Amino acid sequence: MMSYTELSKAELSALYEKLNSEYKEYCGKNLKLDMSRGKPSPEQLDICMEMLDIKDVYAENGMDTRNYGLLEGIPEARKLMGDLLGMKMENTIIGGNSSLNMMFDAVALGFTHGVYGAKLPWSKQEKIKFLCPVPGYDRHFRITEFFGFEMITIPMDENGPDMNKVEELVNNDPAVKGIWCVPKYSNPSGITYSDEVVKRFAALKPAADDFRIFWDNAYAIHFLDRNDDDKLLNIYDECVKNGTEDMVYIFASTSKISFAGAGVAAMGASKGNLDLLSKQEGVKTIGSDKINQLRHVKYYKDYEGLLSCMEKHAKIMKPKFDMVLKTLDEELSGTGTGTWNSVKGGYFIALDTMEGCAKRTLELCKSAGVVMTPAGATYPYGNDFKDSTIRIAPSYPSPAELEVAAKLLCLCVKIAAVEKLLNK
Amino acid sequence: MMSYTELSKAELSALYEKLNSEYKEYCGKNLKLDMSRGKPSPEQLDICMEMLDIKDVYAENGMDTRNYGLLEGIPEARKLMGDLLGMKMENTIIGGNSSLNMMFDAVALGFTHGVYGAKLPWSKQEKIKFLCPVPGYDRHFRITEFFGFEMITIPMDENGPDMNKVEELVNNDPAVKGIWCVPKYSNPSGITYSDEVVKRFAALKPAADDFRIFWDNAYAIHFLDRNDDDKLLNIYDECVKNGTEDMVYIFASTSKISFAGAGVAAMGASKGNLDLLSKQEGVKTIGSDKINQLRHVKYYKDYEGLLSCMEKHAKIMKPKFDMVLKTLDEELSGTGTGTWNSVKGGYFIALDTMEGCAKRTLELCKSAGVVMTPAGATYPYGNDFKDSTIRIAPSYPSPAELEVAAKLLCLCVKIAAVEKLLNK
Repeated sequence: MMSYTELSKAELSALYEKLNSEYKEYCGKNLKLDMSRGKPSPEQLDICMEMLDIKDVYAENGMDTRNYGLLEGIPEARKLMGDLLGMKMENTIIGGNSSLNMMFDAVALGFTHGVYGAKLPWSKQEKIKFLCPVPGYDRHFRITEFFGFEMITIPMDENGPDMNKVEELVNNDPAVKGIWCVPKYSNPSGITYSDEVVKRFAALKPAADDFRIFWDNAYAIHFLDRNDDDKLLNIYDECVKNGTEDMVYIFASTSKISFAGAGVAAMGASKGNLDLLSKQEGVKTIGSDKINQLRHVKYYKDYEGLLSCMEKHAKIMKPKFDMVLKTLDEELSGTGTGTWNSVKGGYFIALDTMEGCAKRTLELCKSAGVVMTPAGATYPYGNDFKDSTIRIAPSYPSPAELEVAAKLLCLCVKIAAVEKLLNK
Repeated sequence: MMSYTELSKAELSALYEKLNSEYKEYCGKNLKLDMSRGKPSPEQLDICMEMLDIKDVYAENGMDTRNYGLLEGIPEARKLMGDLLGMKMENTIIGGNSSLNMMFDAVALGFTHGVYGAKLPWSKQEKIKFLCPVPGYDRHFRITEFFGFEMITIPMDENGPDMNKVEELVNNDPAVKGIWCVPKYSNPSGITYSDEVVKRFAALKPAADDFRIFWDNAYAIHFLDRNDDDKLLNIYDECVKNGTEDMVYIFASTSKISFAGAGVAAMGASKGNLDLLSKQEGVKTIGSDKINQLRHVKYYKDYEGLLSCMEKHAKIMKPKFDMVLKTLDEELSGTGTGTWNSVKGGYFIALDTMEGCAKRTLELCKSAGVVMTPAGATYPYGNDFKDSTIRIAPSYPSPAELEVAAKLLCLCVKIAAVEKLLNK
């Protein structure tokens, strides 16, 4: 395949006609596909249905999980989720069904009262900045925006965020108070932070005394092939070596292991951080749903139980990822209209179109009945300055739907590219 | 029985000896009873165990409750909880397992961003005051204290808060932004607000444009006898008549209907309020546990289902309340050492000792092995200026334990009173 940039005007015009007639065919199919969010498919949600048969209500320590109490979660849930986080049980607390909620609460505490060891809450400081590696998770950015913090984009490559930039900003600007990270199978680019990147994170020397790394390890065990799983260095262990363990909050949940809407979320942090966060939690609630915690522990038993569950997810997910990657390869390779990473896990593939073509591509998709995550959503303020990144979420559609959607997407990428080259 | 205040020094001294020797007997029994919190008993937690057999996952609208989405809750849960709140489905949103958490979030939104229609968030205003009818719920006061608001106590009688005081403060002082209410079977006094009190609440003309009534209807259907249930006027309907419907937030949960630690919480409010609160919720989470919502709806079916469940609770609770009330009557009537309301529902009995005797009474109880809610806990800042109110929570102990505990409590009340009269 010849790169589109090397085609003559006449060739481009002919190509445009051809692509457009293909596109019209798709429009006639009355497609109605939603690839906008990283939702598990019904088939995936069936994997753990036996969990709902469990009616145990007594925790190992004899506690009746039906009653009030035990703010930090039942010990066996803290152990299980600690293993997922890479944290000791003592450094793990359980939340409700949403790790996002725990992140929000951690930011809110920084805003209203200040993080552990802080002199002032963020709300009483002049300017608060958060670093946002891009492309990233739109809901992280929404939390930061909600509290009115300035967001600074940090470019990422296949090893993680640009650490020169991170170090320069964190170590010199006391207004920089946080950074959002999805360190493994990153949302949406699918990359995993290299050991060097993790070590440089742990060795940060923030100018602010209230800087925190929000380490959202949402895809910790979400491999496509257990034998080819990316390895992520344990940031907490690295922080302990550097004496910076108060600097990091670690999050995970079973949302994409058991049930997206009814899983168990957890957070790992140093004792100082957790003590302060628990104080806030203790004002908010008498405790999260412990019956659901126990249900999860009884079903999975241990970390190996979580991993073997993820093998079942992988069996469903891998063919979908393979199909999208194969389609991208067949349709776009050599055309110069798009680039993407091959990914080994997570929920997304990030496709970069020619600059200035993402919005137009998705507009074309939408008109043909395929809804994707809006262009720009993976950037702070929804502003993808290159108008290039498209987030593909292959999990929810059926393989048949996905095949159609992936081909249509590639067609739209090409049409948008040709339009750009023809200055249409 | 003669009032202790009419006894001579010599009579009091003799009584003191007698009471103390009784007390020593209790101390020899190695009691270990906890009456500190309003927790359902294991027997009550067994009532709804069949709910855990339910494995339905599809909501009426076809939604898969296992997946992400539907921030406001599944429609059938909004209908059921709306009936509990006395609100339409459209004015009801579902939270997680804790209505306290919804109250916290509502206060937090007022603090960080301002309530619906407000010009400024509370955090940007000079001084924020909340009215706290006393005795009241300690966890309400903790939320207010957490955000640094000044708490102003409002006395209550058997009809509810002193509305002259409430009107004077709310209608004249723009710094007054909220009031905490447990309008039915109030925690801890057990009284229900009269129709006149509710009407006067709805007719408030706050000096502040961002004043809110936190109407925590935690015991909406928690009668001891369904045929002798207090009637509470629907405040939202009254507010609509006055055009003040943006002024009230209404809360309830199934914590003391299904499972204390794994129920469903809900909030009712005007569209303006809910739209704004949902915006915050949408930043925090992708939705609460909908499997649990559906489990509740499938089990209870409708409002009548909730009521018949509460009849089962009443069957367990009433004998306990009766025993405490009978013991108080037998042991304290006529002595002038304590007063209490007879209650028709809720979780508590409030006992007022002679002034200055509550702390000493509970100290005596504790030394004999019975832990009660700390004296003062039902007042802002834990400060019961009369040192008089004791909160009795009869639900958790077994009837046999309760009998011992109630008698010991009465004994301690009498000892503390005699000590006071003897200036010991």
